[in-house]
Formats: sequence, C-alpha cells, structure tokens
Amino acid sequence: MNKKLIAAILTVILGAGAGYVLNAFAQAKPETVVKQRQAVMILHAKYMYGHLRPTAQGKIPYDANVVARNAGFIDALSQMPWDGFDPRTKDIQSRAMPAVFSDAAKFKEAQDRYRGEIVKLVAATKGGDEAAVKSQILAVNKSCDGCHESFRESK
Amino acid sequence: MNKKLIAAILTVILGAGAGYVLNAFAQAKPETVVKQRQAVMILHAKYMYGHLRPTAQGKIPYDANVVARNAGFIDALSQMPWDGFDPRTKDIQSRAMPAVFSDAAKFKEAQDRYRGEIVKLVAATKGGDEAAVKSQILAVNKSCDGCHESFRESK
Repeated sequence: MNKKLIAAILTVILGAGAGYVLNAFAQAKPETVVKQRQAVMILHAKYMYGHLRPTAQGKIPYDANVVARNAGFIDALSQMPWDGFDPRTKDIQSRAMPAVFSDAAKFKEAQDRYRGEIVKLVAATKGGDEAAVKSQILAVNKSCDGCHESFRESK
Repeated sequence: MNKKLIAAILTVILGAGAGYVLNAFAQAKPETVVKQRQAVMILHAKYMYGHLRPTAQGKIPYDANVVARNAGFIDALSQMPWDGFDPRTKDIQSRAMPAVFSDAAKFKEAQDRYRGEIVKLVAATKGGDEAAVKSQILAVNKSCDGCHESFRESK
C-alpha cells in the first residue's frame, strides 16, 4: 500500500473513532458545547500564559515539579476542546473563525501540530533538562499562536 | 510520633507547597481567577455528567477506553480549581458559599474526600472490572454532591 492510501484509511478509522466518542456523550446543547470548549481555552491560558510561558521566559523561577505538573494539565486539556467545534455550533457567536468549519482538514492539521508539541513537552519534563523544557514550552506556545492566527478572531 | 502530630506536620508541609504553587503563578485578576475555577467545573460537568455518570447508570454503552480517558481528564481537572478559591475572590458574585472562605478546613476536607475517590476511580479503570468502575464513578459523583451541598449555592 502506498503512503497516501494508508493515510486515507487512517483518516477514516480515526474519524470514525472521534465520531464514536462524540456520540457516546449525552448530547449537550450547542451553547453548552461552546462554553465547554471556551472553558478549555481559559484553563489553557491559566497554565500556559500564567505559568509555563513566563517560566520559559525567565519571569518566574523554574520549578521542575510545577512545570511537569502543569505540562501534564496542558496534556489533558489539549485533548478536550476539539469535539466542541461541532458543526451544530457553527452559527453561535464566538471567536471561532468560519475556517474552523469550512477547512476542517487544515484545522485538524493545526490541532495535530499542537498536540505533537505537547507530547514532546511532556517527554522533555521527564528528561530533566531545564533548557530543553523551556525551549519546548516556547514551541508549544508557537503552535498555539499558529492555530489562533488562522482559526480565531482577534479580540 | 502519633497520628495527629503527623497529620499536623503534613498539613503544614502541604499547605506551604500549595502556597508556593500559587505564588509561582503570574498574579491573575480576581475576576479571572473566578472564571478559571468556573471553567474547571464546566469541564468536570462535561465528562462527569455528560459521560461517566450516565455510563455508570447504564444510559450510555460502556466503553472501557473512553471511560479510562475521561477518568484521566477528571483526575487532572480535579486538581485545578482549588487555588481559584483565593481569598481575593471572596466578594465576587459566584455560587461559592461564604463557608468556602470561613471554614477553609472543612472545605479542604471535602476536596480531599473528592480527590481520594478520583484516585480510586483511576485505579479501577486500570483494573478492568466494569462493575467496580461503575460503582466508583457513582462514589465520585457522591463526593461532588457532598461538597456542593455545603459549599455551593443552589441555582
């Protein structure tokens, strides 16, 4: 099988899996779904902008245990928002740009890039190299910004 | 050393640790802190009331992988709200009852009971016994309600 075919099959399998997880939830109202995905971003900001990024920038003293804990929190949080970009929420006022729904493949790519950076951050916090952890925190932050540029309205 | 003395020492050590974590964060505005702790509850509801509880009640088909994932999410979320009950937020309108601030020891006990049930739930999801997992989900839910009764205003 060539790589494109494998990728296409994986997309179908993973897509079906994501659909299952979504459908396994008691159906929430679209307004609730929007609030839930926004809640993830609020908490992401708490740990990323309130602690990890200023730590990487040297504005907060480096504490390996707190950094590892918060990277673990971000690891969990970063898996939570995506089913909240449910097509049923398309017309509800939020900062999600129309491209979230009209260019789902590009949005998924941005999510995957972000998740990939976080997996690397969690691994780095286990490695104990402060400089590597700080540099990876900034890489995660860059992947947040990358997604926001194309998919989130500025304030 | 007797048990009471050990407990007292642990309280001081853990209390100091929690204070350090709090102070290590860039200081957020009290209004932001309230939104952050409310965001945790919104997400807790997503996974607990939207999936885990109805699964335990037989309303949603049991999927061990999704249950384990969501129990992991709840494990992370359940560590996030407590520093949000910052005394600086005491006078901001929310459903937090005055006892949160006036009876901090009892509030901490309720948090610890809840955390203890979640640790047991995560362990149960690793054990693979569906009945045990379902029963432990309901125990977690009971510990949520136990805290809400004394520390959260009804709607």
